[in-house]
Amino acid sequence: MTDTEQRVARLEQRLQALEDEAEIARLISSYGPLVDSGSADAVAALWEPDGVYDVDTGRLSGHDEIVAMVHSKAHQRLITAGCAHVIGLPHVTVQGEQAVATCHSQLIVNHENTGGFTVLRVTANHWELRRSAKGWRVTRRTNRLLDGRHDSPELLASGMRRTP
Amino acid sequence: MTDTEQRVARLEQRLQALEDEAEIARLISSYGPLVDSGSADAVAALWEPDGVYDVDTGRLSGHDEIVAMVHSKAHQRLITAGCAHVIGLPHVTVQGEQAVATCHSQLIVNHENTGGFTVLRVTANHWELRRSAKGWRVTRRTNRLLDGRHDSPELLASGMRRTP
Amino acid sequence: MTDTEQRVARLEQRLQALEDEAEIARLISSYGPLVDSGSADAVAALWEPDGVYDVDTGRLSGHDEIVAMVHSKAHQRLITAGCAHVIGLPHVTVQGEQAVATCHSQLIVNHENTGGFTVLRVTANHWELRRSAKGWRVTRRTNRLLDGRHDSPELLASGMRRTP
Repeated sequence: MTDTEQRVARLEQRLQALEDEAEIARLISSYGPLVDSGSADAVAALWEPDGVYDVDTGRLSGHDEIVAMVHSKAHQRLITAGCAHVIGLPHVTVQGEQAVATCHSQLIVNHENTGGFTVLRVTANHWELRRSAKGWRVTRRTNRLLDGRHDSPELLASGMRRTP
Repeated sequence: MTDTEQRVARLEQRLQALEDEAEIARLISSYGPLVDSGSADAVAALWEPDGVYDVDTGRLSGHDEIVAMVHSKAHQRLITAGCAHVIGLPHVTVQGEQAVATCHSQLIVNHENTGGFTVLRVTANHWELRRSAKGWRVTRRTNRLLDGRHDSPELLASGMRRTP
Repeated sequence: MTDTEQRVARLEQRLQALEDEAEIARLISSYGPLVDSGSADAVAALWEPDGVYDVDTGRLSGHDEIVAMVHSKAHQRLITAGCAHVIGLPHVTVQGEQAVATCHSQLIVNHENTGGFTVLRVTANHWELRRSAKGWRVTRRTNRLLDGRHDSPELLASGMRRTP
């Protein structure tokens, strides 16, 4: 290889690394708008077909259970009242064909009476992702409420120990 | 073209795509700090001269109306009391010379009595942008309160249907 | 230089600029998960050894004082009760070997009695960073509560005046 070819090959690697991080952040940024608009199929499609969404309130396995959660009375009632699943700035670490991302999320709901909003849940998020033929997809997302239980801080710490 | 020239041309395209997304996210990230510091002209300059800021509380058209909103008694009272316009992680889709971005935003205000803070508004944000000679500028930003009204979830969904 | 070599050199510069911004955003995104999990040494390592964390509640100087803050009874009590230091979308401006970043941050705490969450603090953040041999590090982070005091809006504005 010539010197220029080597520099081009290095640029391709570095650009790919940035593109991976940007695509994963973009996937994570889409969860809130999709779930708050009841876009059930598009929410599920963020996960691999056998992906898991493990929340302290229950464990969803595969696309059908994720779709059912979005269609559930409990979730539809949140949308009807007015709700926002606000996803925090993700910390993304890519390791080859796999990645982890760590962030907070908030569930904020409207108060029919006061017109104001209440922060109902604040959650530690740990995302595990895999590069698929269709792009990055979630294999497991683990959410634990930050209410003093021990596994929530531990979940935040676990994603930060990874090095690229 | 040689093989190396083709790879360089492809790198230039891919890098431009990342730069566009980063510039748009950076523009969006500047709204909160600018409006919370009363930087009226800099807030308005995020929009095209004929750009529109369409909020459920009113529709602002062009730089002068946006400047007037920042200078208004209502907004100055928010700053004096203590306020934060917190912009969520944006989901950006660029299509040539145009782009859309979707995110949540929160208006959080200080309580003079308790010393704590109240989430006054949580809003669906739909940004439409255009590449101008000076860089990306907002042509229309549409905000709707997430209080159960039907157009807010629809607004979130509309930005997610775009594909790059 | 040939035309291709010039294009490669220009690509290297542009990619470096994006990588710098991404690395700084990633550093900032790590603060919340690290401090909420009590990862004291990793929190301190975001700063230069002589870096300063200047908060309206006190001024920490150097790694030892930052570690001591994370280990303090007050901070450990927050973790035990359930807390989230949610960092907003940063606006990053790199100027050679230095950078500034501006964002909001929120401290949200769990209510033992109600099970809900309260926004205890909303803060203007001004980060100053330096490129070191180990990557970007914080030289000074200045936080001021957005409770109506004059220096908080001024702090937000100061980071936005920088041009790359």
